[in-house]
Amino acid sequence: MQLNIIKIGGNIIDSETDLALFLEDLSRLKTPFILVHGGGKLATQMASQLNIPQQMVHGRRITNAETLKVATMVYAGYINKTIVAGLQKSGVNAIGLSGADANIIKASKRSATPVDYGFVGDVDYAHIQNKTLQVFLEQDLTPVVCAITHDGNGQLLNTNADTIAAQIACSMSNHFKVKLIYCFEKNGVLLNADQDDSVIPEIDESMFQTYVNSGIIKDGMIPKMDNCFFALNNGVQEVRILHASQLKNHINHNSNDGTRITSTL
Amino acid sequence: MQLNIIKIGGNIIDSETDLALFLEDLSRLKTPFILVHGGGKLATQMASQLNIPQQMVHGRRITNAETLKVATMVYAGYINKTIVAGLQKSGVNAIGLSGADANIIKASKRSATPVDYGFVGDVDYAHIQNKTLQVFLEQDLTPVVCAITHDGNGQLLNTNADTIAAQIACSMSNHFKVKLIYCFEKNGVLLNADQDDSVIPEIDESMFQTYVNSGIIKDGMIPKMDNCFFALNNGVQEVRILHASQLKNHINHNSNDGTRITSTL
Repeated sequence: MQLNIIKIGGNIIDSETDLALFLEDLSRLKTPFILVHGGGKLATQMASQLNIPQQMVHGRRITNAETLKVATMVYAGYINKTIVAGLQKSGVNAIGLSGADANIIKASKRSATPVDYGFVGDVDYAHIQNKTLQVFLEQDLTPVVCAITHDGNGQLLNTNADTIAAQIACSMSNHFKVKLIYCFEKNGVLLNADQDDSVIPEIDESMFQTYVNSGIIKDGMIPKMDNCFFALNNGVQEVRILHASQLKNHINHNSNDGTRITSTL
Repeated sequence: MQLNIIKIGGNIIDSETDLALFLEDLSRLKTPFILVHGGGKLATQMASQLNIPQQMVHGRRITNAETLKVATMVYAGYINKTIVAGLQKSGVNAIGLSGADANIIKASKRSATPVDYGFVGDVDYAHIQNKTLQVFLEQDLTPVVCAITHDGNGQLLNTNADTIAAQIACSMSNHFKVKLIYCFEKNGVLLNADQDDSVIPEIDESMFQTYVNSGIIKDGMIPKMDNCFFALNNGVQEVRILHASQLKNHINHNSNDGTRITSTL
């Protein structure tokens, strides 16, 4: 049985109109799915309004206690419940979850050396409760997972949403034929960042290295692609990066949109 | 089979120490439960820090769009997930829910006349998904419900937590022997607000009227007691108001703590 693990990026969440269209599309998918969502700009805005200084190291944010509080409020509270209520409106019986809920994702706090990123969690799919997620799916409940996990010892942890999507995809592969799809505001992985139609249709691991070396694939796309390859090497059948507006057509009609990631071509 | 519907008030939530003790006690209860929690002071603090003016009419807060956003962040996000992670630490497989999650509580927005309270939801237990809550309990999941509901049409709504507890209690009465317990920072309903040991052991509807008329029961205690009587008149077996620290002893040993509310003595 097919199961889609769908990650939706921050830029779609930031636009009320785009998000509404996306949720409407989700309600028309013909195969079951689990949605994983990131944060968008609201957490940063909120931290700024509350005068919580954002510490950065090597371009990455440090999650101190106050930043974690804001992330928990925004991701697990406002964004998660807004998405759940929007899906309910469209007839999808969504259930919002952090990693602490039903112990779905027990993460481990990242080591403080060499860099102390604070309350950040790393996920291993061996610690994802896939049986509980399966029970929800059997009850026709659609899990909507935010990027907050816990360590099982009372500590909430900020966790990368791309990684959560990939790890859930691996975890569910023992019972389902899993497709992992990263939806964002571009038409796929682009050869030229300024040209929307320069989508690379397919990328394998050796091409990925070439693109990284030549600077075509860089910044946040590198860890995203690492997650893609990890998923493919751990049981996931298909991985794709595409524009949020292409999702419905791709899943319902198997359209060849976006960039397909493969282990080897 | 006995099921406890436990409401925990804001004053306990506001104290990190009291909350930790309370969650530890919950993990030692010998019969299953659903926890409903209120908000505490954090939402008000957050609204103040974000410069969101709080409008009051007849001593009650108006929930405008910005206030609803803060309530959703604080109740469904920070407080709900803090409680869930704390229960997980103590070995309780908790699952946090707003009314939108799994469509657990579909509320209706309160009429704008005579007073427009804004995005406030009223709950009727006919619209609570007791079968889904039962499925969770059968999976040994413990629902932790916050005071945010939805209207089924994409709108989240701020809802009174005492009312949610009473309506869930009524709804679950068709399958369980339900005990509804309001936990707060006092030893029960007091004859004299300044005397902690002046607990009224038992109150029925006629005594309630007498106490209201004489001014002994007033303010927020009146709607709380209305919820108690509503529950008793709609299938709930037992209703009690007690100190959070008395809960464990009462449930495990049937101790006669706090105030028992009865239809007629």
